[in-house]
Amino acid sequence: MSVPAPSEPESPFGQRVTVEQVEEGCELAPKFDAAGLIPCVTTDHASGEVLMVAVMNRDALAKTIETGEAHYWSRSRQQLWHKGATSGLVQKVTEMRIDDDQDCVWLRVEIVGGASCHVGYRSCFYRRVPVGADRSQGTKLEFTESEKAFDPKAVYGDAANPTQL
Amino acid sequence: MSVPAPSEPESPFGQRVTVEQVEEGCELAPKFDAAGLIPCVTTDHASGEVLMVAVMNRDALAKTIETGEAHYWSRSRQQLWHKGATSGLVQKVTEMRIDDDQDCVWLRVEIVGGASCHVGYRSCFYRRVPVGADRSQGTKLEFTESEKAFDPKAVYGDAANPTQL
Repeated sequence: MSVPAPSEPESPFGQRVTVEQVEEGCELAPKFDAAGLIPCVTTDHASGEVLMVAVMNRDALAKTIETGEAHYWSRSRQQLWHKGATSGLVQKVTEMRIDDDQDCVWLRVEIVGGASCHVGYRSCFYRRVPVGADRSQGTKLEFTESEKAFDPKAVYGDAANPTQL
Repeated sequence: MSVPAPSEPESPFGQRVTVEQVEEGCELAPKFDAAGLIPCVTTDHASGEVLMVAVMNRDALAKTIETGEAHYWSRSRQQLWHKGATSGLVQKVTEMRIDDDQDCVWLRVEIVGGASCHVGYRSCFYRRVPVGADRSQGTKLEFTESEKAFDPKAVYGDAANPTQL
């Protein structure tokens, strides 16, 4: 009796064959960049506020689809990142969308705890940039959240700040 | 009389000196990647729907701030892209935000004409990916817009489709 050779686990993603298939079809065939990553925009399911922009690798995207909880690829730690595993601020996915050429993911999420940003704010986008005619009032960034939703020191302790200069 | 040497035009963006300044300060000091680009998420100002994700170079970001109309960097055409210059679907910026480490921009826009996607839909994210328990109903992408907002052939003619396989 012959023993079958061990096979690669089947990919959950389709092959990209034609532009029409990718843009107009019903098969998930995401495009990962040269580093194996796809960007992901995450918004609050109720307010529509953009909470964060991160990246996923194949494993993170597959795990997010499988579990319904947001997983990303952490470039600073070079590892799979189950968002909220440290802070408790898990993101429950209420909807996932893929864009026209399938090289970007949009997650709508509900956050247990309500906040998302490592600085302590609800959204990572907590500052407004004056644009166009509004610049006559000044060009400084304006804070859009009056106070932090949590104390990052209490949640993350002495973990390294991921911000790079 | 000495003639002053021609100087570089003054940068509209601040220097990135400390993490605290970048995260907690009021100065716009964006981080451009190795290719000189910063990603930008664009949402509909009223519905909160994510319309598109693109990139800006320094010039595109500066022009967006100056004019209040969205400018991006077109990677397929390798040129400054005043969104809507071809299609008429100009994006009026109602709010610009910058994220914690200032390496991502969020634009809220009002679109003259209402649509954004080169395929003809209102948003580039016109397909839903079933996630978690919803996958028991099937794993195929579901269209979220029942019909196209415009005919891309009529608007773009024979211009090359920017989607890459």
